[in-house]
Amino acid sequence: MHDQFEHKQQAWSARFSEPVSALVQRYTASVDFDQRLALFDIAGSIAHATMLTEQGILNADDLAAIERGMAQIRTEIDSGAFEWKLELEDVHLNIEARLTQLAGDAGKRLHTGRSRNDQVATDIRLWLRDSIDQSIAQLRALQRALVQLAAQHADTIMPGFTHLQVAQPVSFGHHLLAYVEMFGRDAERLRDCRARVNRLPLGAAALAGTTFPIDRPRVAELLGFDGVCQNSLDAVSDRDFAIEYNAACALIMVHISRFSEELVLWMSPAFGFIDLADRFCTGSSIMPQKKNPDVPELARGKTGRVTGHLMSLLMLMKGQPLAYNKDNQEDKEPLFDTADTVIDTLRIFTDMVGGIRVKAEAMERTALQGYSTATDLADYLVKKGLPFRDAHETVAKAVRFAVERGIGLEDISLNDLRSFSPLIGEDAPEALKLQGSLAARDHLGGTAPNQVRAQVARWQAALGDA
Amino acid sequence: MHDQFEHKQQAWSARFSEPVSALVQRYTASVDFDQRLALFDIAGSIAHATMLTEQGILNADDLAAIERGMAQIRTEIDSGAFEWKLELEDVHLNIEARLTQLAGDAGKRLHTGRSRNDQVATDIRLWLRDSIDQSIAQLRALQRALVQLAAQHADTIMPGFTHLQVAQPVSFGHHLLAYVEMFGRDAERLRDCRARVNRLPLGAAALAGTTFPIDRPRVAELLGFDGVCQNSLDAVSDRDFAIEYNAACALIMVHISRFSEELVLWMSPAFGFIDLADRFCTGSSIMPQKKNPDVPELARGKTGRVTGHLMSLLMLMKGQPLAYNKDNQEDKEPLFDTADTVIDTLRIFTDMVGGIRVKAEAMERTALQGYSTATDLADYLVKKGLPFRDAHETVAKAVRFAVERGIGLEDISLNDLRSFSPLIGEDAPEALKLQGSLAARDHLGGTAPNQVRAQVARWQAALGDA
Amino acid sequence: MHDQFEHKQQAWSARFSEPVSALVQRYTASVDFDQRLALFDIAGSIAHATMLTEQGILNADDLAAIERGMAQIRTEIDSGAFEWKLELEDVHLNIEARLTQLAGDAGKRLHTGRSRNDQVATDIRLWLRDSIDQSIAQLRALQRALVQLAAQHADTIMPGFTHLQVAQPVSFGHHLLAYVEMFGRDAERLRDCRARVNRLPLGAAALAGTTFPIDRPRVAELLGFDGVCQNSLDAVSDRDFAIEYNAACALIMVHISRFSEELVLWMSPAFGFIDLADRFCTGSSIMPQKKNPDVPELARGKTGRVTGHLMSLLMLMKGQPLAYNKDNQEDKEPLFDTADTVIDTLRIFTDMVGGIRVKAEAMERTALQGYSTATDLADYLVKKGLPFRDAHETVAKAVRFAVERGIGLEDISLNDLRSFSPLIGEDAPEALKLQGSLAARDHLGGTAPNQVRAQVARWQAALGDA
Amino acid sequence: MHDQFEHKQQAWSARFSEPVSALVQRYTASVDFDQRLALFDIAGSIAHATMLTEQGILNADDLAAIERGMAQIRTEIDSGAFEWKLELEDVHLNIEARLTQLAGDAGKRLHTGRSRNDQVATDIRLWLRDSIDQSIAQLRALQRALVQLAAQHADTIMPGFTHLQVAQPVSFGHHLLAYVEMFGRDAERLRDCRARVNRLPLGAAALAGTTFPIDRPRVAELLGFDGVCQNSLDAVSDRDFAIEYNAACALIMVHISRFSEELVLWMSPAFGFIDLADRFCTGSSIMPQKKNPDVPELARGKTGRVTGHLMSLLMLMKGQPLAYNKDNQEDKEPLFDTADTVIDTLRIFTDMVGGIRVKAEAMERTALQGYSTATDLADYLVKKGLPFRDAHETVAKAVRFAVERGIGLEDISLNDLRSFSPLIGEDAPEALKLQGSLAARDHLGGTAPNQVRAQVARWQAALGDA
Repeated sequence: MHDQFEHKQQAWSARFSEPVSALVQRYTASVDFDQRLALFDIAGSIAHATMLTEQGILNADDLAAIERGMAQIRTEIDSGAFEWKLELEDVHLNIEARLTQLAGDAGKRLHTGRSRNDQVATDIRLWLRDSIDQSIAQLRALQRALVQLAAQHADTIMPGFTHLQVAQPVSFGHHLLAYVEMFGRDAERLRDCRARVNRLPLGAAALAGTTFPIDRPRVAELLGFDGVCQNSLDAVSDRDFAIEYNAACALIMVHISRFSEELVLWMSPAFGFIDLADRFCTGSSIMPQKKNPDVPELARGKTGRVTGHLMSLLMLMKGQPLAYNKDNQEDKEPLFDTADTVIDTLRIFTDMVGGIRVKAEAMERTALQGYSTATDLADYLVKKGLPFRDAHETVAKAVRFAVERGIGLEDISLNDLRSFSPLIGEDAPEALKLQGSLAARDHLGGTAPNQVRAQVARWQAALGDA
Repeated sequence: MHDQFEHKQQAWSARFSEPVSALVQRYTASVDFDQRLALFDIAGSIAHATMLTEQGILNADDLAAIERGMAQIRTEIDSGAFEWKLELEDVHLNIEARLTQLAGDAGKRLHTGRSRNDQVATDIRLWLRDSIDQSIAQLRALQRALVQLAAQHADTIMPGFTHLQVAQPVSFGHHLLAYVEMFGRDAERLRDCRARVNRLPLGAAALAGTTFPIDRPRVAELLGFDGVCQNSLDAVSDRDFAIEYNAACALIMVHISRFSEELVLWMSPAFGFIDLADRFCTGSSIMPQKKNPDVPELARGKTGRVTGHLMSLLMLMKGQPLAYNKDNQEDKEPLFDTADTVIDTLRIFTDMVGGIRVKAEAMERTALQGYSTATDLADYLVKKGLPFRDAHETVAKAVRFAVERGIGLEDISLNDLRSFSPLIGEDAPEALKLQGSLAARDHLGGTAPNQVRAQVARWQAALGDA
Repeated sequence: MHDQFEHKQQAWSARFSEPVSALVQRYTASVDFDQRLALFDIAGSIAHATMLTEQGILNADDLAAIERGMAQIRTEIDSGAFEWKLELEDVHLNIEARLTQLAGDAGKRLHTGRSRNDQVATDIRLWLRDSIDQSIAQLRALQRALVQLAAQHADTIMPGFTHLQVAQPVSFGHHLLAYVEMFGRDAERLRDCRARVNRLPLGAAALAGTTFPIDRPRVAELLGFDGVCQNSLDAVSDRDFAIEYNAACALIMVHISRFSEELVLWMSPAFGFIDLADRFCTGSSIMPQKKNPDVPELARGKTGRVTGHLMSLLMLMKGQPLAYNKDNQEDKEPLFDTADTVIDTLRIFTDMVGGIRVKAEAMERTALQGYSTATDLADYLVKKGLPFRDAHETVAKAVRFAVERGIGLEDISLNDLRSFSPLIGEDAPEALKLQGSLAARDHLGGTAPNQVRAQVARWQAALGDA
Repeated sequence: MHDQFEHKQQAWSARFSEPVSALVQRYTASVDFDQRLALFDIAGSIAHATMLTEQGILNADDLAAIERGMAQIRTEIDSGAFEWKLELEDVHLNIEARLTQLAGDAGKRLHTGRSRNDQVATDIRLWLRDSIDQSIAQLRALQRALVQLAAQHADTIMPGFTHLQVAQPVSFGHHLLAYVEMFGRDAERLRDCRARVNRLPLGAAALAGTTFPIDRPRVAELLGFDGVCQNSLDAVSDRDFAIEYNAACALIMVHISRFSEELVLWMSPAFGFIDLADRFCTGSSIMPQKKNPDVPELARGKTGRVTGHLMSLLMLMKGQPLAYNKDNQEDKEPLFDTADTVIDTLRIFTDMVGGIRVKAEAMERTALQGYSTATDLADYLVKKGLPFRDAHETVAKAVRFAVERGIGLEDISLNDLRSFSPLIGEDAPEALKLQGSLAARDHLGGTAPNQVRAQVARWQAALGDA
């Protein structure tokens, strides 16, 4: 029996007159990074062979030989004994070559009615479906950690910032729940994306389908796909799913970067709102006192990485004529790295959130700076009948008065305060208190501790750990 | 009555001691480009005022005055009579200032319980919801045009390419339907995105909610939102929806770029597969003979534009601490330009597809080059019992034989052909025919004209013009 | 006399059988944004006509008519009287059409030996050369403003941060000079880029040169170009210069974004290091106390904008076959917007730096937090003979001791301090002082006030305002 | 003697109370990818130690011990015996820890007056300087290969395209030289970038310089730097050089992508202009006839990769406050991958250009299509006295006449031709010949074979292999 794969050293196939040069081989081979598709490749091959057998294209002996061979290959891969060969280019040819050694003609029959074009598309989709499931699970875990911390801090007052200026007091728990919302949308997006990933390209063969009477819905069923790609040309050339996943991941990382920025700020002595556990920090080779928030900084940096991969993939696909072009091989490394980065980052953040020590006193101290309850005073005046725009102006004048004296609004005497508006009564100072300000924002989505607790309960129910 | 807006020349508000410099005014104002939100801003304000009145925060007279004022403003904007002022910064203050002129204290009361932060977020979402609906409608229109052309060309044979080498013959209708699939996924993505856009931020006020007893679900109902944003901090700082829409649009443009690349190739004399109607082409200022496919080229170029906007937005949001920062003002121009670009491009392509003249003969002539039915011969041998890998090798040898002689596979004598495999019978030449090759790929997703017609029917039903 | 431009309504040229559709006209026209090239287009045309006359291809009367016509057109454009027509597509045809009205056959002769392909490339290069000169001038102005502020603050102590943790005390002047270095590199890059911009493409005609005996070096001389593009195909298809300029601008904006981030931090009450003049800030529509650092925030956001344009341009050029393709029309809008953004931003920052009020006391107070002189104590021990790595460990123990007690290093008694190392003498506390720490870093590039003053002097000399 | 590095398992340093968690260790360590800096790190350390000794900060024995230890470490790394430890984070601590084992206290003294912040900046610059030199050398090699091919094809006629429509005939050699120009600009840019890379950051220490009397210009001299970074804060936080190099590489890849696009087109049977040697192509797993241009396709795809890295780096640096932040660790992987990708791609293209087989006949055949000499006929009429714009119109009418009859311009009878203009004489058909058209574009930068040969000679002189 002749083994085509053993002759790759002489020529790619019988149609070629010289072998691929060593430099080209290294440049074009993907086996170094597409190995990670191996188990999905095997699963796909077995499903394909099963269907071919059911359709009478292979016989039962062939199928049994293929299954035995694949079981052996899986064992070899798991144990590290499998010998990956650069000259066999990719995971597919490496496995098919080994199968042919193990299963003879049955192995040579496996590629009936398929091509590497639809095979690799199937493998990536199977791998990505799994990565999406892991990503969603990690998002959920991080949400749980945040909700748990929020539950403890419904009543903890921190200064809410806009433009990094103190704006209004908010509940620290409320602030944390903003991130729970973001990661919740991320999970929604991944779920939507999963539905588009989970369609079977196999059966498209090179680009046009095959002359064998294949049963694609059966293969879809065997592999757990929700449906089949309806057009063979599209099936082999489509990489939308990679881009859509990467775009969703770029948003996850944007959220991580915002949270990271805040963790870094809060841990800076200028803020001093939190401390991160030592195990998430490192020191300096020169400055003995340093304790640096490495993890959020690095995560913030990785936002660029994942966004860069998105750019790569979009640029990769731009202007490609149908159907498959070799350019597409460049889809894998960015996609793999994006998934690794996101899953690792979410895992480490889940852990880190559990190690946050909250310095409630420092938060409250800063909330007292910056006239954070000025809006409450304006609202007070509105409730006394002043149109909001006039109330805003009145309080702005009082703030300017206080700024010029370097004092707080609460430090202005009632008399002085009344000089800005006769509507100001003895109950006005009450409106300037942090707790009251917080408690008064008591509507759906507001920062009142009541509302925070209601949101915590909602999320606990949704996340399944109430 | 005192009008705060008239005093912007002296200072931003009573809290400030000098006016914004002219350069800063020009640099920070958004009214030049956010004018297009005006009608959505008005609709949002009326819904807000209605709810405030229902909650007893405004009275019926206020509401009536606001509605009258807004009706007047709408008329002024429509007629071009509205005077937009740079010193009033943005669409919101411009409209509120005019309303205050028209409605007096009622106008000054409108801003009760809201802030520009939640107001602008509401306006953009209303605008984007509308743009998504337009985008989907245009995708549908383009799909219809493609399906109609595909219906006429189920039996038209063209060479299917991989690596721009002739691979296997495909139906031109089948090829067009690949794009129908792509644009179908695009519409799915926009629909998913719409669900996340269509949530109400109003009521978040600056960042923490308000002390007034507002009813956010009621405002959502009035404005047709599916729900409300559950966290006020997230509501004002979230721009995920802009990024998600832009990412979906980048994919639309990638699909457009691939189609454009093919149109340009097909119209090149080297291919000569199609001709575009003169009204989609322009000439050269120097070369009198030129007829250039400007529209697909320009559209291909615009892929970079939309992707660039996506990168802008991701970079914009990276690392922003909560809640609102002025950086966010930069979200609008890329978003607006993305929507304009995509909607215009889809519209013009819909038109252009109707003006494609297909040169079926040239397509078929090229399909005869490049040994496009070699796979069919391999499949033929498999059906005679040869394992696929051996069949592949056998045919590769035959191809090399033909290449060296500069002839087609069908030009090899039966005797010579048999020298490659004794399994080759008198019926082998039949396998090399284009029509047979096409018809044989007769399974779900395959290129057989039967299948193409079935897909056309499926899409006609889905697109509602069967 | 027949006017070709008047017949564009019927067909693009005599070769076409129908006019460009209205939608296509709007989609493909560039006159809305390439108008800004008008004066450069006119200058280029006059240089071209002059050379053609010198070469005997036009006669002196033609040249005189062209010059008269162009003078008239320039006047019309300056006064706003020039009528730009969408159906004439772009700035070039608009001007040529008007010239033909004014100058008759001479106008019809102007396009001899050139094409719009080399014409537009020439126009953009002329425009970009001018924009680069403006960009460099603005960089210089900003550097001067920073150097001036640095000169006042050589001795002002602020906490130097790494990881936003207090690291070591630095001179505020030194900190500002870091940005002077960055903007200095930016100016270098623009100068390098200018040399590649300033080469003449005219004479490449459509793509291959022309059959007329043109003198390209003469045209280069007339227009102030340093040389001519050596290959006609490259001349019309090259857009490297746009990308290189945009890449240099993206770096400028990255520097601006870093400075902006610091300005926003420093102005936050948590830091309180500076105050920006009121004229660079705006307030809040709801919170009467707010004074927001709008300019640095917006500038930070614009980093995404300029980077997005860079991505657009790279993606635009990717995979374009030679020579000119219509895709290239998409080069202008991002390029124009990048130049506008960078020039405006630099101008406003120059102004704003002059309006920074430094709160030296707050800076020094924060420098006392965070054990910023711990490295000085380690260096002290090294000078007493301890290997640095051991000194680092010794001080780390002392820091831990202080952290656990919530005190500073300088608050540890000499006895306690000696328990960490017997090498600690009575002079050790001196090493912990901020001023000494600063002054001791007295080498090229170090933060010692001496060094800062030397750098200020170096820059003043370089920037020409010593 | 106490070894600080052995205690990293218990805590980062004596200041910390718990070790870094295993997940954090893996997430934050860079040793897996920064190993490649090892030899540069050693060179930098030896130069630093030499200067410290010359300045009397270390003694001669220390220096000798350090040099011996480093020689040993270099041997261990070269042989693969060096044991890289994840818990030592990065290349710097790994080498310093090993040095301390080998050289005792001398090893512990090495870090005097420096920090990892300035150390890593120095290492990367040394590495990048070397990569730039390699990149330039590869650009030169590719230029030489292109010039050599161009020299053989000065007289080979191909159709010049604009808009992928046949425009005018050009010399194939001329076409190739367009790429020589592009790669020439790339080399210029890298040279400019190198000047900014080659400045020494060492001596900046953590961010502020050091209290030891170091001599930075001496270290610069020892390491071959052109100068020193003038500001310590800038020195440790600057990553401009990485971005500038990556931007230059993105342009290289854009040029590669354009050339690749053309190679793929030319090798498609629709064009059939060239054949690539078999050793640069691969086949199909299903279609026995396929010979695919993998290398140019993959290279085209890698344009996205390098551009993605550029995006990553810009986003990474956006908004970082001074001085060093951990985010910066993310600079290495994109930078390393960019350099590898560009150097490999240039090398393989150099090889591939040598394996291009030109099919001159097919090129010429296509040049005869598409009325490629229509401009020559217009120029002919101009030379007879017709204004160019009228000549253009006249020929456009003749083209339309020919298109409607499906014939070439040269197939129109002289009588019919004259019906378009009485100026058309018996010599007009001569103007329509390809060779004459080519030869007539005989000016600097034009496509005349004369000019092509002159450019070949110019480049051979410049590239040093005349």
